[in-house]
Amino acid sequence: MKIIRYPDRAQWADIVRRPQPENAQIDTVVKCILDDVKQYGDSAVIKYEEQFDHVQLSTLAVSAAEMDEAERLVAPELKAAIKLAHRNIEKFHAAQHFEGQKIETLKGVTCWQKSVPIERVGLYIPGGTAPLFSTVLMLATPAKIADCKEIVLCTPPDKTGKVHPAILFAAQTAGVNTLFKVGGVQAIGAMAYGTQTIPQVYKIFGPGNRYVMTAKQQVSLHQTAIDMPAGPSEVCVIADETSTAAFVAADLLSQAEHGTDSQVLLITTSEELLKEVESEINQQLMQLPRKTIAEKALANSLFVLVKDDNEAMALSNAYAPEHLIIATCNYNELATKVINAGSVFLGKYACESAGDYASGTNHTLPTHGYARAYSGVNLDSYQRKITFQQLDEAGITSIGRAVEAMAEAEQLQAHKQAMSIRIQSLQKSGSQKQ
Amino acid sequence: MKIIRYPDRAQWADIVRRPQPENAQIDTVVKCILDDVKQYGDSAVIKYEEQFDHVQLSTLAVSAAEMDEAERLVAPELKAAIKLAHRNIEKFHAAQHFEGQKIETLKGVTCWQKSVPIERVGLYIPGGTAPLFSTVLMLATPAKIADCKEIVLCTPPDKTGKVHPAILFAAQTAGVNTLFKVGGVQAIGAMAYGTQTIPQVYKIFGPGNRYVMTAKQQVSLHQTAIDMPAGPSEVCVIADETSTAAFVAADLLSQAEHGTDSQVLLITTSEELLKEVESEINQQLMQLPRKTIAEKALANSLFVLVKDDNEAMALSNAYAPEHLIIATCNYNELATKVINAGSVFLGKYACESAGDYASGTNHTLPTHGYARAYSGVNLDSYQRKITFQQLDEAGITSIGRAVEAMAEAEQLQAHKQAMSIRIQSLQKSGSQKQ
Repeated sequence: MKIIRYPDRAQWADIVRRPQPENAQIDTVVKCILDDVKQYGDSAVIKYEEQFDHVQLSTLAVSAAEMDEAERLVAPELKAAIKLAHRNIEKFHAAQHFEGQKIETLKGVTCWQKSVPIERVGLYIPGGTAPLFSTVLMLATPAKIADCKEIVLCTPPDKTGKVHPAILFAAQTAGVNTLFKVGGVQAIGAMAYGTQTIPQVYKIFGPGNRYVMTAKQQVSLHQTAIDMPAGPSEVCVIADETSTAAFVAADLLSQAEHGTDSQVLLITTSEELLKEVESEINQQLMQLPRKTIAEKALANSLFVLVKDDNEAMALSNAYAPEHLIIATCNYNELATKVINAGSVFLGKYACESAGDYASGTNHTLPTHGYARAYSGVNLDSYQRKITFQQLDEAGITSIGRAVEAMAEAEQLQAHKQAMSIRIQSLQKSGSQKQ
Repeated sequence: MKIIRYPDRAQWADIVRRPQPENAQIDTVVKCILDDVKQYGDSAVIKYEEQFDHVQLSTLAVSAAEMDEAERLVAPELKAAIKLAHRNIEKFHAAQHFEGQKIETLKGVTCWQKSVPIERVGLYIPGGTAPLFSTVLMLATPAKIADCKEIVLCTPPDKTGKVHPAILFAAQTAGVNTLFKVGGVQAIGAMAYGTQTIPQVYKIFGPGNRYVMTAKQQVSLHQTAIDMPAGPSEVCVIADETSTAAFVAADLLSQAEHGTDSQVLLITTSEELLKEVESEINQQLMQLPRKTIAEKALANSLFVLVKDDNEAMALSNAYAPEHLIIATCNYNELATKVINAGSVFLGKYACESAGDYASGTNHTLPTHGYARAYSGVNLDSYQRKITFQQLDEAGITSIGRAVEAMAEAEQLQAHKQAMSIRIQSLQKSGSQKQ
């Protein structure tokens, strides 16, 4: 790790800067695969599954028999853990239900918002060595709570054409039964355009490598919404002399093991704590199977010593971390000063792993500084707030003249006329009544 | 207009399809201007203002003197209308404030969401023949209510270097005082990257031509969020034999006058109403100054006769209109069946102009079918919901084992370790107490 002591504000821009990968070549490859899937559907998907996942598929859909088998294959303790996590995620996201209130802005003018689920959503779960069943829970649970009519899940199979049973079990637990064995760019294309077997969706959620992310961004330029843009995962820990160095070290390592490009930032007011964390990291690192990955990530990590809590918080806000752990004694006070972060963990016991898996909060969060403008995935992500309005005769009296004046000034006579014709009709019926 | 009687479901795809403009050339031009603004800042902005807006600017900022002058130049009746509209927009959007509740998902595990304003937002107001001061109100009012720290507004000046006084007055009314005389792609670039005088923002809002829209999409691929993608404006009117043909015609015309590419769709269960509307349109059209534009838009418009209300509503949902006017007698019943729409207008008096200007709802809405996945601009658009969580000792007991089991199964040992080390510390302090 690189240690920076009491940096000037002028140095902050360097501290908070993320690596900017060059994407030109990826863009071209991704566009080519997407175009192919758009044009040829399933046959293109099957071709790319063979090319990238080294598997020959005759059918893309996960069968009911495979779902049943998964139920048998997952160990009872893991099943219990998945069910516990699911209940918590469900409880937290169900509490996010929105009820719009009817507002009479002026007499006879009533306006309201109504939350309506997105009809078709697509969830992408990456493959790789470990099965990311926790992400299945994080994406599928709120989709069910939102009451999306069609929830499609794509995930790459292994070389034998199977999906890991924990992924299938998590999907089943969350109530998703439309799963396809498709990964990578071809999965994003299939969900964006639809194929003979994979339904088209209106919004795609989920993590992935740079190819998947680029594919999501490319489809988002045309018709399909996406959850958010993304980069490598990140954590920022704010600690002081009262923080437990071993906990802080463990939290930093749990981020570092994600990938060699993981971003790890420690901000502290205590030189002593900083040194203790450094030594704890060196000890704990030894026991990790993903030691080599974590070491590479740590080589790029920054430990920053600042003069006080306010500066610590300001630097964190400038960085806009995906995960922010506030491990200081006055964490409640600092929590009120958080401006830019995806998800915030308060106190010595709220480790990032808690939120990654089972506390109930979502772990699909804005990285790469996107926390400055984006929320993490939450119930809103699966819904739209549609506005409604109703006017009666009194409403025309309340706002009719203002609408006419504004439309006239914007030189939109037909806009004016749509109001004038109603005003005139009321005047006519008024004079008839007299 | 083209009349389609009782179409098969198979024909719906054609009815709801939007025109797909080819963008390759625009993409290149836009990228070039954005790169220039990124590299050269103000001097590039000034160069493009000369090239596109035919104006030589020495300063980009609107001065306090110009703001004062605007106050004097706007007619009293228009000022009153702007103030009335502002109050209604404020009232409706202020009612959208979100208060997250603390949820104890399990004993000792507390999670909540908090709405935090986006620190810096940029509003873009297009130029052209008419001053779009109503859009100033729609974008700036919720930004103020959300309490965004920095609200930057860019709008192109006329050839004399002035901004229309109604735009300045609306900005002042909504509480925005940081205005710049910049339009087009260069405005989007300036706000996305920041220049010597124009502050960088994290999210850009507002309408514009295809160049501006493409610029917004291009910057959204990198660092800056945008309100939503956009296409030409649209209205769908659902009417029955009880609807007032003159009102329906006026509403369709108010959409048609926006631009030759405006999308206008009438869905009705009544052949008679359809004919009346057609004849009303021909009469009302004669009186419009923007007759030629409206005529061109109407040439592409569709009038669809369907067998019943359910089919009308289903077709509208398949189309996903930006604006939906339900002018049938049973509008309340149909309102419950709206799935895809930006903003819905109910009954004979709720004309689109009401919501365009003064009822209080926002008029920045998803077009081009994006209503399937996007909300219109609302208070949420200016905020992020940040999640917080706090665990105490009991919380570790509640979820500790589940986190360990899940991290283990995802082969993320450091994630497991971050929880295990806390469990062990509690066991140790527990046994010390005994």
